[in-house]
Amino acid sequence: MDQERLRRQRDFILEIDKEKLIQRQTHLSGHGRRENDAEHAWHMAIMAYLLREYANEEIDITRVLIMCLIHDIVEIDAGDTYAYDAEGLKTQKVREERAKERIFSLLPEDQKEELQSLFEEFEAYETPEAKFAHAMDNFQPLLLNDSNDGGDWVEHGVTAAQVMGRQGKTRYGSETLADYTAKLIEKHIQKGHIKEERTCK
Amino acid sequence: MDQERLRRQRDFILEIDKEKLIQRQTHLSGHGRRENDAEHAWHMAIMAYLLREYANEEIDITRVLIMCLIHDIVEIDAGDTYAYDAEGLKTQKVREERAKERIFSLLPEDQKEELQSLFEEFEAYETPEAKFAHAMDNFQPLLLNDSNDGGDWVEHGVTAAQVMGRQGKTRYGSETLADYTAKLIEKHIQKGHIKEERTCK
Repeated sequence: MDQERLRRQRDFILEIDKEKLIQRQTHLSGHGRRENDAEHAWHMAIMAYLLREYANEEIDITRVLIMCLIHDIVEIDAGDTYAYDAEGLKTQKVREERAKERIFSLLPEDQKEELQSLFEEFEAYETPEAKFAHAMDNFQPLLLNDSNDGGDWVEHGVTAAQVMGRQGKTRYGSETLADYTAKLIEKHIQKGHIKEERTCK
Repeated sequence: MDQERLRRQRDFILEIDKEKLIQRQTHLSGHGRRENDAEHAWHMAIMAYLLREYANEEIDITRVLIMCLIHDIVEIDAGDTYAYDAEGLKTQKVREERAKERIFSLLPEDQKEELQSLFEEFEAYETPEAKFAHAMDNFQPLLLNDSNDGGDWVEHGVTAAQVMGRQGKTRYGSETLADYTAKLIEKHIQKGHIKEERTCK
Protein backbone atom coordinates (compact mmCIF):
# COMPACT_ATOMS: atom_id res chain seq x y z
CA MET A 1 0.00 0.00 0.00
CA ASP A 2 1.13 3.54 -0.77
CA GLN A 3 1.01 5.09 2.71
CA GLU A 4 1.52 8.61 1.41
CA ARG A 5 -1.41 8.26 -0.99
CA LEU A 6 -3.77 7.03 1.71
CA ARG A 7 -2.54 9.78 4.06
CA ARG A 8 -3.46 12.43 1.49
CA GLN A 9 -6.86 10.87 0.91
CA ARG A 10 -7.44 10.85 4.67
CA ASP A 11 -6.40 14.51 4.95
CA PHE A 12 -8.93 15.48 2.28
CA ILE A 13 -11.65 13.36 3.91
CA LEU A 14 -11.09 15.08 7.26
CA GLU A 15 -10.88 18.52 5.64
CA ILE A 16 -14.27 18.23 3.97
CA ASP A 17 -15.82 17.33 7.34
CA LYS A 18 -15.96 21.13 7.77
CA GLU A 19 -18.68 21.34 5.14
CA LYS A 20 -21.07 20.14 7.84
CA LEU A 21 -20.58 23.52 9.53
CA ILE A 22 -21.39 25.73 6.53
CA GLN A 23 -24.90 27.05 7.07
CA ARG A 24 -27.19 27.74 4.14
CA GLN A 25 -30.16 30.10 4.10
CA THR A 26 -32.63 27.30 3.43
CA HIS A 27 -34.50 25.85 6.40
CA LEU A 28 -35.31 22.18 6.88
CA SER A 29 -38.82 21.09 5.99
CA GLY A 30 -41.16 21.70 8.93
CA HIS A 31 -39.70 25.16 9.63
CA GLY A 32 -36.72 23.61 11.40
CA ARG A 33 -33.20 24.95 11.68
CA ARG A 34 -31.19 25.99 8.65
CA GLU A 35 -29.53 23.18 6.74
CA ASN A 36 -25.83 22.89 6.03
CA ASP A 37 -23.88 22.22 2.85
CA ALA A 38 -23.24 18.53 3.55
CA GLU A 39 -26.94 17.86 4.17
CA HIS A 40 -27.89 19.80 1.05
CA ALA A 41 -25.41 17.85 -1.08
CA TRP A 42 -26.62 14.50 0.29
CA HIS A 43 -30.22 15.45 -0.45
CA MET A 44 -29.37 16.65 -3.96
CA ALA A 45 -27.54 13.42 -4.79
CA ILE A 46 -30.48 11.22 -3.82
CA MET A 47 -32.81 13.53 -5.75
CA ALA A 48 -30.59 13.32 -8.82
CA TYR A 49 -30.81 9.53 -8.74
CA LEU A 50 -34.58 9.47 -8.22
CA LEU A 51 -35.40 12.20 -10.75
CA ARG A 52 -32.89 11.28 -13.47
CA GLU A 53 -35.76 10.21 -15.74
CA TYR A 54 -36.64 13.93 -16.14
CA ALA A 55 -33.23 15.00 -17.50
CA ASN A 56 -33.50 16.61 -20.94
CA GLU A 57 -30.57 14.63 -22.28
CA GLU A 58 -28.95 11.30 -21.52
CA ILE A 59 -26.73 11.65 -18.46
CA ASP A 60 -23.98 9.66 -16.78
CA ILE A 61 -25.59 9.47 -13.35
CA THR A 62 -22.34 8.64 -11.53
CA ARG A 63 -20.77 11.89 -12.69
CA VAL A 64 -23.92 13.77 -11.68
CA LEU A 65 -23.80 12.18 -8.23
CA ILE A 66 -20.18 13.18 -7.64
CA MET A 67 -20.87 16.72 -8.87
CA CYS A 68 -23.77 16.99 -6.44
CA LEU A 69 -21.68 15.64 -3.56
CA ILE A 70 -18.69 17.97 -4.07
CA HIS A 71 -20.19 21.09 -5.68
CA ASP A 72 -20.07 23.18 -2.47
CA ILE A 73 -16.68 22.07 -1.12
CA VAL A 74 -15.08 25.45 -1.86
CA GLU A 75 -17.48 27.05 0.62
CA ILE A 76 -15.32 25.60 3.42
CA ASP A 77 -13.07 28.61 2.79
CA ALA A 78 -15.34 30.90 0.78
CA GLY A 79 -18.55 30.55 2.80
CA ASP A 80 -22.05 30.18 1.41
CA THR A 81 -23.18 33.02 -0.83
CA TYR A 82 -26.96 33.38 -0.82
CA ALA A 83 -28.36 33.21 -4.34
CA TYR A 84 -29.93 36.68 -3.98
CA ASP A 85 -27.00 38.42 -2.22
CA ALA A 86 -25.76 40.80 -4.95
CA GLU A 87 -22.76 42.10 -2.98
CA GLY A 88 -21.53 38.65 -1.99
CA LEU A 89 -21.90 37.39 -5.54
CA LYS A 90 -19.37 39.99 -6.77
CA THR A 91 -16.47 38.52 -4.77
CA GLN A 92 -17.66 34.92 -4.83
CA LYS A 93 -15.61 33.91 -7.87
CA VAL A 94 -12.21 34.98 -6.48
CA ARG A 95 -12.90 33.49 -3.05
CA GLU A 96 -13.97 30.19 -4.54
CA GLU A 97 -11.01 29.94 -6.96
CA ARG A 98 -8.54 30.17 -4.07
CA ALA A 99 -10.48 27.63 -2.03
CA LYS A 100 -10.64 25.21 -4.94
CA GLU A 101 -6.87 25.19 -5.33
CA ARG A 102 -6.18 24.74 -1.62
CA ILE A 103 -8.72 22.04 -0.85
CA PHE A 104 -8.38 19.78 -3.89
CA SER A 105 -4.57 19.99 -3.57
CA LEU A 106 -4.81 17.90 -0.43
CA LEU A 107 -5.62 14.88 -2.62
CA PRO A 108 -3.17 12.73 -4.59
CA GLU A 109 -2.46 14.48 -7.91
CA ASP A 110 -4.63 12.20 -10.09
CA GLN A 111 -7.62 12.56 -7.78
CA LYS A 112 -7.08 16.30 -7.46
CA GLU A 113 -7.32 16.54 -11.24
CA GLU A 114 -10.36 14.29 -11.44
CA LEU A 115 -12.41 16.02 -8.75
CA GLN A 116 -11.34 19.51 -9.75
CA SER A 117 -12.32 18.72 -13.32
CA LEU A 118 -15.78 17.53 -12.20
CA PHE A 119 -16.12 20.61 -10.03
CA GLU A 120 -15.20 22.89 -12.95
CA GLU A 121 -17.54 21.01 -15.27
CA PHE A 122 -20.36 21.71 -12.81
CA GLU A 123 -19.42 25.39 -12.61
CA ALA A 124 -19.24 25.73 -16.43
CA TYR A 125 -22.91 24.66 -16.72
CA GLU A 126 -22.41 23.23 -20.22
CA THR A 127 -22.60 19.43 -20.19
CA PRO A 128 -25.88 17.53 -19.72
CA GLU A 129 -24.54 16.29 -16.36
CA ALA A 130 -23.70 19.80 -15.13
CA LYS A 131 -27.07 21.14 -16.25
CA PHE A 132 -28.93 18.38 -14.45
CA ALA A 133 -26.83 18.71 -11.28
CA HIS A 134 -27.59 22.45 -11.29
CA ALA A 135 -31.29 21.66 -11.71
CA MET A 136 -31.01 19.66 -8.47
CA ASP A 137 -29.12 22.52 -6.80
CA ASN A 138 -32.12 24.74 -7.58
CA PHE A 139 -34.89 22.22 -7.07
CA GLN A 140 -33.77 20.95 -3.64
CA PRO A 141 -34.15 24.27 -1.74
CA LEU A 142 -37.28 25.05 -3.78
CA LEU A 143 -39.01 21.91 -2.49
CA LEU A 144 -37.97 22.64 1.09
CA ASN A 145 -39.06 26.25 0.83
CA ASP A 146 -42.37 25.27 -0.77
CA SER A 147 -43.00 22.86 2.12
CA ASN A 148 -42.34 25.77 4.52
CA ASP A 149 -44.87 28.16 2.92
CA GLY A 150 -42.07 30.04 1.20
CA GLY A 151 -40.58 31.18 4.50
CA ASP A 152 -37.08 31.77 3.10
CA TRP A 153 -38.40 34.02 0.33
CA VAL A 154 -40.51 35.99 2.78
CA GLU A 155 -37.60 36.40 5.21
CA HIS A 156 -35.34 37.82 2.48
CA GLY A 157 -38.02 39.82 0.63
CA VAL A 158 -37.20 38.02 -2.59
CA THR A 159 -38.85 39.17 -5.86
CA ALA A 160 -40.34 37.14 -8.69
CA ALA A 161 -37.58 38.42 -10.99
CA GLN A 162 -34.93 37.05 -8.64
CA VAL A 163 -36.53 33.64 -8.19
CA MET A 164 -37.25 33.28 -11.88
CA GLY A 165 -33.71 34.33 -12.72
CA ARG A 166 -32.27 31.50 -10.71
CA GLN A 167 -34.95 28.85 -11.00
CA GLY A 168 -35.47 29.55 -14.71
CA LYS A 169 -32.13 27.85 -15.39
CA THR A 170 -33.56 24.55 -14.21
CA ARG A 171 -34.94 24.39 -17.77
CA TYR A 172 -31.41 23.75 -19.14
CA GLY A 173 -31.35 20.47 -17.21
CA SER A 174 -35.00 19.42 -17.11
CA GLU A 175 -38.02 20.83 -18.94
CA THR A 176 -40.32 18.73 -16.76
CA LEU A 177 -38.94 20.00 -13.47
CA ALA A 178 -38.83 23.55 -14.85
CA ASP A 179 -42.55 23.40 -15.66
CA TYR A 180 -43.25 22.11 -12.16
CA THR A 181 -41.03 24.85 -10.70
CA ALA A 182 -42.80 27.59 -12.68
CA LYS A 183 -46.16 26.51 -11.24
CA LEU A 184 -44.77 26.50 -7.69
CA ILE A 185 -43.36 29.99 -8.14
CA GLU A 186 -46.69 31.31 -9.46
CA LYS A 187 -48.44 29.80 -6.44
CA HIS A 188 -46.09 31.61 -4.06
CA ILE A 189 -46.42 34.91 -5.94
CA GLN A 190 -50.19 34.61 -5.64
CA LYS A 191 -49.88 33.86 -1.92
CA GLY A 192 -47.65 36.89 -1.44
CA HIS A 193 -44.59 34.89 -0.37
CA ILE A 194 -42.60 36.17 -3.36
CA LYS A 195 -42.82 39.87 -4.26
CA GLU A 196 -44.56 40.43 -7.60
CA GLU A 197 -41.79 42.47 -9.29
CA ARG A 198 -41.23 40.44 -12.41
CA THR A 199 -38.45 42.53 -13.93
CA CYS A 200 -35.13 43.54 -12.39
CA LYS A 201 -34.78 47.16 -11.26
CA MET B 1 -45.77 14.31 -17.25
CA ASP B 2 -47.19 11.85 -14.73
CA GLN B 3 -48.19 14.22 -11.91
CA GLU B 4 -48.90 11.40 -9.47
CA ARG B 5 -45.45 9.92 -10.01
CA LEU B 6 -43.68 13.22 -9.40
CA ARG B 7 -45.88 13.87 -6.36
CA ARG B 8 -44.78 10.56 -4.82
CA GLN B 9 -41.14 11.29 -5.57
CA ARG B 10 -41.54 14.70 -3.92
CA ASP B 11 -43.18 13.13 -0.85
CA PHE B 12 -40.25 10.75 -0.43
CA ILE B 13 -37.73 13.56 -0.93
CA LEU B 14 -39.39 15.64 1.77
CA GLU B 15 -39.73 12.64 4.09
CA ILE B 16 -36.01 11.84 4.02
CA ASP B 17 -35.26 15.45 4.99
CA LYS B 18 -35.85 14.14 8.53
CA GLU B 19 -32.63 12.16 8.35
CA LYS B 20 -30.84 15.46 8.99
CA LEU B 21 -32.28 15.34 12.51
CA ILE B 22 -31.08 11.85 13.46
CA GLN B 23 -28.09 12.30 15.73
CA ARG B 24 -25.27 9.77 15.75
CA GLN B 25 -22.79 9.16 18.54
CA THR B 26 -19.82 10.23 16.43
CA HIS B 27 -18.57 13.77 16.84
CA LEU B 28 -17.34 15.98 14.03
CA SER B 29 -13.58 16.24 13.60
CA GLY B 30 -12.19 18.94 15.91
CA HIS B 31 -14.31 17.77 18.87
CA GLY B 32 -17.36 19.54 17.46
CA ARG B 33 -21.01 18.63 17.88
CA ARG B 34 -22.32 15.15 17.03
CA GLU B 35 -22.96 14.48 13.38
CA ASN B 36 -26.27 13.39 11.89
CA ASP B 37 -27.22 10.59 9.52
CA ALA B 38 -27.41 12.77 6.40
CA GLU B 39 -23.95 14.20 7.00
CA HIS B 40 -22.55 10.73 7.70
CA ALA B 41 -24.06 9.35 4.49
CA TRP B 42 -22.72 12.26 2.41
CA HIS B 43 -19.25 11.76 3.88
CA MET B 44 -19.36 7.99 3.28
CA ALA B 45 -20.38 8.43 -0.36
CA ILE B 46 -17.47 10.74 -1.14
CA MET B 47 -15.12 8.37 0.70
CA ALA B 48 -16.43 5.40 -1.29
CA TYR B 49 -15.63 7.22 -4.52
CA LEU B 50 -12.15 8.30 -3.41
CA LEU B 51 -11.17 4.99 -1.82
CA ARG B 52 -12.71 2.61 -4.38
CA GLU B 53 -9.23 1.55 -5.51
CA TYR B 54 -8.89 -0.32 -2.18
CA ALA B 55 -11.97 -2.54 -2.65
CA ASN B 56 -11.07 -6.25 -2.56
CA GLU B 57 -13.23 -7.00 -5.57
CA GLU B 58 -14.43 -5.11 -8.61
CA ILE B 59 -17.38 -2.93 -7.62
CA ASP B 60 -20.11 -1.00 -9.40
CA ILE B 61 -19.41 2.36 -7.78
CA THR B 62 -22.85 3.81 -8.61
CA ARG B 63 -24.56 1.08 -6.60
CA VAL B 64 -22.12 1.63 -3.75
CA LEU B 65 -22.86 5.36 -3.78
CA ILE B 66 -26.62 4.85 -3.59
CA MET B 67 -26.23 2.28 -0.80
CA CYS B 68 -24.11 4.76 1.15
CA LEU B 69 -26.62 7.56 0.60
CA ILE B 70 -29.71 5.60 1.67
CA HIS B 71 -28.38 3.02 4.15
CA ASP B 72 -29.64 4.87 7.25
CA ILE B 73 -33.04 6.01 5.95
CA VAL B 74 -34.92 3.59 8.22
CA GLU B 75 -33.52 5.44 11.23
CA ILE B 76 -36.06 8.21 10.53
CA ASP B 77 -38.52 5.93 12.36
CA ALA B 78 -36.21 3.51 14.13
CA GLY B 79 -33.62 5.96 15.45
CA ASP B 80 -29.86 5.49 15.46
CA THR B 81 -28.66 2.42 17.33
CA TYR B 82 -25.12 2.88 18.60
CA ALA B 83 -22.84 0.10 17.38
CA TYR B 84 -22.00 -0.90 20.96
CA ASP B 85 -25.52 -0.62 22.49
CA ALA B 86 -26.35 -4.29 23.17
CA GLU B 87 -29.95 -3.61 24.34
CA GLY B 88 -30.83 -1.39 21.39
CA LEU B 89 -29.36 -3.89 18.96
CA LYS B 90 -31.87 -6.54 20.12
CA THR B 91 -34.93 -4.62 18.88
CA GLN B 92 -33.19 -2.85 16.00
CA LYS B 93 -34.23 -5.39 13.36
CA VAL B 94 -37.99 -5.20 14.00
CA ARG B 95 -37.99 -1.42 14.25
CA GLU B 96 -36.06 -1.07 11.02
CA GLU B 97 -38.22 -3.55 9.08
CA ARG B 98 -41.36 -1.51 9.81
CA ALA B 99 -39.62 1.73 8.91
CA LYS B 100 -38.34 0.30 5.64
CA GLU B 101 -41.82 -0.63 4.50
CA ARG B 102 -43.36 2.71 5.43
CA ILE B 103 -40.70 5.00 4.02
CA PHE B 104 -39.88 3.28 0.72
CA SER B 105 -43.63 2.87 0.06
CA LEU B 106 -43.87 6.62 -0.44
CA LEU B 107 -42.07 6.17 -3.78
CA PRO B 108 -43.58 5.02 -7.09
CA GLU B 109 -43.68 1.20 -7.07
CA ASP B 110 -40.69 0.66 -9.40
CA GLN B 111 -38.48 3.00 -7.39
CA LYS B 112 -39.66 1.52 -4.12
CA GLU B 113 -38.52 -1.88 -5.37
CA GLU B 114 -35.21 -0.55 -6.64
CA LEU B 115 -34.21 1.36 -3.52
CA GLN B 116 -35.52 -1.26 -1.13
CA SER B 117 -33.56 -3.88 -3.01
CA LEU B 118 -30.36 -1.82 -2.71
CA PHE B 119 -31.08 -1.24 0.95
CA GLU B 120 -31.57 -4.98 1.54
CA GLU B 121 -28.45 -5.79 -0.45
CA PHE B 122 -26.50 -3.50 1.86
CA GLU B 123 -28.02 -5.13 4.94
CA ALA B 124 -27.28 -8.66 3.64
CA TYR B 125 -23.54 -7.87 3.53
CA GLU B 126 -22.89 -10.36 0.73
CA THR B 127 -22.12 -8.59 -2.55
CA PRO B 128 -18.80 -6.81 -3.20
CA GLU B 129 -20.73 -3.51 -3.26
CA ALA B 130 -22.41 -4.13 0.10
CA LYS B 131 -19.12 -5.20 1.70
CA PHE B 132 -17.37 -2.07 0.45
CA ALA B 133 -20.24 0.23 1.49
CA HIS B 134 -20.10 -1.34 4.97
CA ALA B 135 -16.34 -0.76 5.04
CA MET B 136 -17.12 2.93 4.52
CA ASP B 137 -19.81 2.82 7.23
CA ASN B 138 -17.10 1.60 9.63
CA PHE B 139 -14.19 3.64 8.32
CA GLN B 140 -15.92 7.04 8.31
CA PRO B 141 -16.58 7.28 12.09
CA LEU B 142 -13.19 5.64 12.75
CA LEU B 143 -11.38 8.46 10.94
CA LEU B 144 -13.40 11.12 12.76
CA ASN B 145 -12.87 9.44 16.11
CA ASP B 146 -9.14 9.00 15.44
CA SER B 147 -8.89 12.72 14.65
CA ASN B 148 -10.59 13.41 18.01
CA ASP B 149 -8.15 11.34 20.11
CA GLY B 150 -10.69 8.54 20.34
CA GLY B 151 -13.14 10.70 22.29
CA ASP B 152 -16.21 8.65 21.36
CA TRP B 153 -14.61 5.39 22.54
CA VAL B 154 -13.54 7.01 25.80
CA GLU B 155 -17.01 8.48 26.39
CA HIS B 156 -18.68 5.09 25.96
CA GLY B 157 -15.98 3.01 27.66
CA VAL B 158 -15.63 0.84 24.56
CA THR B 159 -13.43 -2.28 24.68
CA ALA B 160 -10.96 -3.61 22.14
CA ALA B 161 -13.20 -6.65 21.63
CA GLN B 162 -16.12 -4.39 20.70
CA VAL B 163 -14.15 -2.21 18.31
CA MET B 164 -12.46 -5.19 16.67
CA GLY B 165 -15.81 -6.95 16.36
CA ARG B 166 -17.24 -4.16 14.32
CA GLN B 167 -14.19 -2.78 12.56
CA GLY B 168 -12.85 -6.26 11.82
CA LYS B 169 -15.59 -6.64 9.21
CA THR B 170 -13.99 -3.89 7.14
CA ARG B 171 -11.75 -6.72 5.92
CA TYR B 172 -14.65 -8.20 3.92
CA GLY B 173 -14.69 -5.04 1.79
CA SER B 174 -11.08 -3.90 1.84
CA GLU B 175 -7.96 -5.67 3.11
CA THR B 176 -5.98 -2.45 2.72
CA LEU B 177 -8.33 -0.33 4.82
CA ALA B 178 -8.66 -3.16 7.35
CA ASP B 179 -4.87 -3.21 7.84
CA TYR B 180 -4.90 0.56 8.29
CA THR B 181 -7.83 0.25 10.73
CA ALA B 182 -6.06 -2.43 12.79
CA LYS B 183 -3.06 -0.13 13.26
CA LEU B 184 -5.29 2.75 14.35
CA ILE B 185 -7.07 0.56 16.87
CA GLU B 186 -3.78 -0.65 18.34
CA LYS B 187 -2.65 2.96 18.68
CA HIS B 188 -5.78 3.86 20.62
CA ILE B 189 -5.51 0.78 22.85
CA GLN B 190 -1.92 1.79 23.66
CA LYS B 191 -3.07 5.34 24.42
CA GLY B 192 -5.80 4.03 26.72
CA HIS B 193 -8.68 5.38 24.60
CA ILE B 194 -10.01 1.87 24.02
CA LYS B 195 -10.15 -0.54 26.98
CA GLU B 196 -7.74 -3.43 26.55
CA GLU B 197 -10.27 -6.29 26.96
CA ARG B 198 -9.65 -8.22 23.77
CA THR B 199 -12.24 -10.93 24.29
CA CYS B 200 -15.96 -10.57 24.96
CA LYS B 201 -17.18 -11.28 28.49
